[in-house]
Amino acid sequence: MDATYDRLAGRSIERLAGLSDGVFAVAMTLLVLDLRTPVSEAIHSEQALLQAVWGLGHRVIAYLMSFITLGIFWNGQQAQMIHFKRSNRHLTWINLAFLFFVTLLPFSTGLLAEFVTYRSALLVYWSNILLLGVSLYVSWFYARCAGLLREDTPPDVDSVIRRRVLIAQSLYAVGAALCLVNTYVSIGVIIAVQLNYAIAPSFRGRRTGAR
Amino acid sequence: MDATYDRLAGRSIERLAGLSDGVFAVAMTLLVLDLRTPVSEAIHSEQALLQAVWGLGHRVIAYLMSFITLGIFWNGQQAQMIHFKRSNRHLTWINLAFLFFVTLLPFSTGLLAEFVTYRSALLVYWSNILLLGVSLYVSWFYARCAGLLREDTPPDVDSVIRRRVLIAQSLYAVGAALCLVNTYVSIGVIIAVQLNYAIAPSFRGRRTGAR
Amino acid sequence: MDATYDRLAGRSIERLAGLSDGVFAVAMTLLVLDLRTPVSEAIHSEQALLQAVWGLGHRVIAYLMSFITLGIFWNGQQAQMIHFKRSNRHLTWINLAFLFFVTLLPFSTGLLAEFVTYRSALLVYWSNILLLGVSLYVSWFYARCAGLLREDTPPDVDSVIRRRVLIAQSLYAVGAALCLVNTYVSIGVIIAVQLNYAIAPSFRGRRTGAR
Amino acid sequence: MDATYDRLAGRSIERLAGLSDGVFAVAMTLLVLDLRTPVSEAIHSEQALLQAVWGLGHRVIAYLMSFITLGIFWNGQQAQMIHFKRSNRHLTWINLAFLFFVTLLPFSTGLLAEFVTYRSALLVYWSNILLLGVSLYVSWFYARCAGLLREDTPPDVDSVIRRRVLIAQSLYAVGAALCLVNTYVSIGVIIAVQLNYAIAPSFRGRRTGAR
Repeated sequence: MDATYDRLAGRSIERLAGLSDGVFAVAMTLLVLDLRTPVSEAIHSEQALLQAVWGLGHRVIAYLMSFITLGIFWNGQQAQMIHFKRSNRHLTWINLAFLFFVTLLPFSTGLLAEFVTYRSALLVYWSNILLLGVSLYVSWFYARCAGLLREDTPPDVDSVIRRRVLIAQSLYAVGAALCLVNTYVSIGVIIAVQLNYAIAPSFRGRRTGAR
Repeated sequence: MDATYDRLAGRSIERLAGLSDGVFAVAMTLLVLDLRTPVSEAIHSEQALLQAVWGLGHRVIAYLMSFITLGIFWNGQQAQMIHFKRSNRHLTWINLAFLFFVTLLPFSTGLLAEFVTYRSALLVYWSNILLLGVSLYVSWFYARCAGLLREDTPPDVDSVIRRRVLIAQSLYAVGAALCLVNTYVSIGVIIAVQLNYAIAPSFRGRRTGAR
Repeated sequence: MDATYDRLAGRSIERLAGLSDGVFAVAMTLLVLDLRTPVSEAIHSEQALLQAVWGLGHRVIAYLMSFITLGIFWNGQQAQMIHFKRSNRHLTWINLAFLFFVTLLPFSTGLLAEFVTYRSALLVYWSNILLLGVSLYVSWFYARCAGLLREDTPPDVDSVIRRRVLIAQSLYAVGAALCLVNTYVSIGVIIAVQLNYAIAPSFRGRRTGAR
Repeated sequence: MDATYDRLAGRSIERLAGLSDGVFAVAMTLLVLDLRTPVSEAIHSEQALLQAVWGLGHRVIAYLMSFITLGIFWNGQQAQMIHFKRSNRHLTWINLAFLFFVTLLPFSTGLLAEFVTYRSALLVYWSNILLLGVSLYVSWFYARCAGLLREDTPPDVDSVIRRRVLIAQSLYAVGAALCLVNTYVSIGVIIAVQLNYAIAPSFRGRRTGAR
């Protein structure tokens, strides 16, 4: 019966993955609704149309930021999940909390894009990233303590995943603290951290085969 | 041909799970659309922005309530499904009815958040939870009677799943009835029941390995 | 290499199923966005709230109709797909056309609900159902001719699936034609046909194990 | 441990496929929200309703164009993915970039439909298609160089997939360049290219079993 139980539990992880992919997919496309086609009555020349499209630029940037952040955390959740042998009620609810913060991200990114010089907008955005990081860290920590990791998980994966969350969140916190100087500096640092995790080559990533 | 039939039926459960995850994912993110970024023309200070964000607070609470309820019923459906060996037309339609009530939940939660002192809003919300519980109960009851449960389903799972739905729905009904006293008392009891099913340690859950 | 090819083709069916489930899930929840919470400023009594909720009734009915129709065609597509051993470019595009008509259904159902006494609204709705039926029929017909059915498909499945589509579409056509008498009669017949396919016990369905 | 690693990597491809299907499904249904039911107060005759529905015609065309383009690129991504044995961080991010351009497509198609005589609208639309093609090409090119293709991938698949992208993008570029003559000619050529890839029989497609 043990083998059967594992198989059932495996399905459970699959459904959590299915729900997560669905929530991420919807959250990733929600902000596109803000890109409204300009009203044709107001446009009378090529130049006016170009200007109207150009005027949507800051929404496209906000959308891109939101998309990259969602991509980072989708990767983070996935990198954990491939090491889970099964889930339980608590791990599921920790991941549901994570998904809740995922759905809030389009809102807080939009707020930051609209109020780029306001410290409170930056703090809302940073709180969202912090909550995502905390719930992801708790998810891994709980899974390890509750013995939900696969037996074939390489021993160094634990410290790599935990260190990655802690370092990234420290950098985000430093970036957010820089808003005491200037919100643009703050945003610049946060975007740099995000691009680093999305694009830059990562020695740690290579060593553990993290995706 | 029997083995083949089982395999085909297995895929059928997979697609029902896929559709369910999709519907839950969309329903879980729909209410975020109500969190509109404040209009930048109306905001001239950090304080005004903080107030505008704070003003969205009751929508965030409503969203969180809706999300938790959806999480509870997603878990409930999943806990059943891992014991189904296959589906048939009737079981599929019972689950489609369940999904229909799932998609109504963002609406009835929003109604309750907007009209928190109105008994009719509370009764609409409670009816939604009742219909979710009834369809979930009927789904399990039908699957058991039609012989659609896996042979390896432990014998005590049946009573655990049925009792769980009945007890939860009784508590919800008591909570709803308390609106004769006061809607706030009523909502408090319902939220307490929900948090109990989401967060609190459950001895029954542990015994049967329910997720 | 033949075994590998089959496995790859199998994955292809899985992704078509994944896309279909996603499209159906979004289409099934889109109409909920029309259920707007009444504005709290306009409501000053329990009775006013009940009336406002009651006023949403025809939208709930339209939503329910749309949901049932989507459920019927989701079942229809799934009943075919479990007999496909693999897909190819043409079968994929036939199913994409089917999905296109799926996404139009919330619109045409909403049109019918809003203009229940208008023959043109009924004809738009009926055209939508007709196109769904035609694309589903073409999908099965093509899969059979192109040799894409599993070898273990029972021989009577072909005639059952084809007859089912033809009979249902004939009944819908009769229902639509009755709009020459009265649109209410017409709608009544169409809803009766839909409920028959959703709820009523089906001897044909039982014989072939259709889900 | 190697076998285990492959299995984990396989799951990773599955989740990328799940996320992609979700994003495509949402993008494919988003434009339906633009098909608004005419307001019943403004409609007083069958003729007025028919005219109102007819007035939605150009939105339906735009929607259909967007749907077909999404279908083409969904097929393109899928045809690649069945040859990937596993993913890594870089391949995942290349595909996330691809998905970002996917979500922009409903916007740029809507822009083209609204401003059909404007060259800038056409260039925005063409840029979107170009970015989709480039990211798909980079995805394949990277996967091949990084050794992420299955060992059983037939040797001619590489040149077929690359040539297909290059030829299609050349035809799109020629179509876009024709806007110097007239935007209608330009759009006509682009739609012809799209229909060719969606519907027309393809010798290349048959030879490699591409779906």
